[in-house]
Amino acid sequence: MREFIDPIARLVNQFSKLPGVGQKTAQRYAYKILDMSPAQVKEFAETLVATKETVHFCAVCGNFTEKERCKICDDALRDHSVICVVKDAKDILAIEKINEYKGVYHVLGGLLNPIENVGPNDLHIKSLMTRLDGTVKEVIIATNPTVEGEATAMYLARLIKPLGVKVTRPAQGVSAGSELEYTDNATLTQALENRKEI
Amino acid sequence: MREFIDPIARLVNQFSKLPGVGQKTAQRYAYKILDMSPAQVKEFAETLVATKETVHFCAVCGNFTEKERCKICDDALRDHSVICVVKDAKDILAIEKINEYKGVYHVLGGLLNPIENVGPNDLHIKSLMTRLDGTVKEVIIATNPTVEGEATAMYLARLIKPLGVKVTRPAQGVSAGSELEYTDNATLTQALENRKEI
Repeated sequence: MREFIDPIARLVNQFSKLPGVGQKTAQRYAYKILDMSPAQVKEFAETLVATKETVHFCAVCGNFTEKERCKICDDALRDHSVICVVKDAKDILAIEKINEYKGVYHVLGGLLNPIENVGPNDLHIKSLMTRLDGTVKEVIIATNPTVEGEATAMYLARLIKPLGVKVTRPAQGVSAGSELEYTDNATLTQALENRKEI
Repeated sequence: MREFIDPIARLVNQFSKLPGVGQKTAQRYAYKILDMSPAQVKEFAETLVATKETVHFCAVCGNFTEKERCKICDDALRDHSVICVVKDAKDILAIEKINEYKGVYHVLGGLLNPIENVGPNDLHIKSLMTRLDGTVKEVIIATNPTVEGEATAMYLARLIKPLGVKVTRPAQGVSAGSELEYTDNATLTQALENRKEI
């Protein structure tokens, strides 16, 4: 973008690192920054750094937190005998939003992937196993229903089941509001296999 | 967003100030920041502040610049006898991109708008008039073809013409690649009135 003067080009470049942001959008964002007051820009910049500095991972489950343990792990009203295993901390937010789940979480930090060289030691599996001290009755493995997600779930199930802990996985089937005509084969197969009497 | 911990909520709030960014997109951006290394986040924050601090307006034309005068005003190869008047500094980029225009620019910083109380003294009109010292042969008024843009163009034309300077406006008509069926009435009227022999 030789038309930009350097500082604007640098800012456009920074914004284009954000997910789904191309040159045009990054340019709009950069102009918006130039339109803001110096105080507003400073606040923006400080929030970026402050958030990165204060937010880290819960020592127990790996969720985002400002303290040593996250809000959910510290909540005595949650059911600590049920652990829901997820890939990323952001998956926790998706589940919390439905306001249905009352147990606690464990973040793996990834999925098993031999092609990309991600093995069991690269995931937070050891810390999950140490949590299974007899007080935990069920582990829900809520990894994505993809090849890697399924493989990781199978691997974990084989580790956990021998401890006498129930291992479950969220049901797979057709989504609410979707049309059978446009549902992919794998999903439809699962939905038929897991059919329920009404 | 009570599901977020405070620092993430603050960051989401900052991102949602960018144009066209809602809660969901702001959330994706915030998670991306948490995924970055502390050094990368610091660089992002510093670029924000540095850009805002170093970028100001050219003393001659009002374009973005790091120096006193912008690259275009300082370029001896440009035709300084033609001034293209635009509303905002970002309009300059749009015109520079087509690589056709070889003259210089003048940024008004807005358009006349009696309803919003924007009068001639709120725009950079005086500085434009001082540039018309006899060396300028043509002023192209490239304000948007809107009510305010047209009114501003008419106002400027009345000021500039008595000085013996040619005043022009970019042609209005149907856009390249557009369909007549979907062209609005005002544009079609202009296109027919300004028809050219082929």
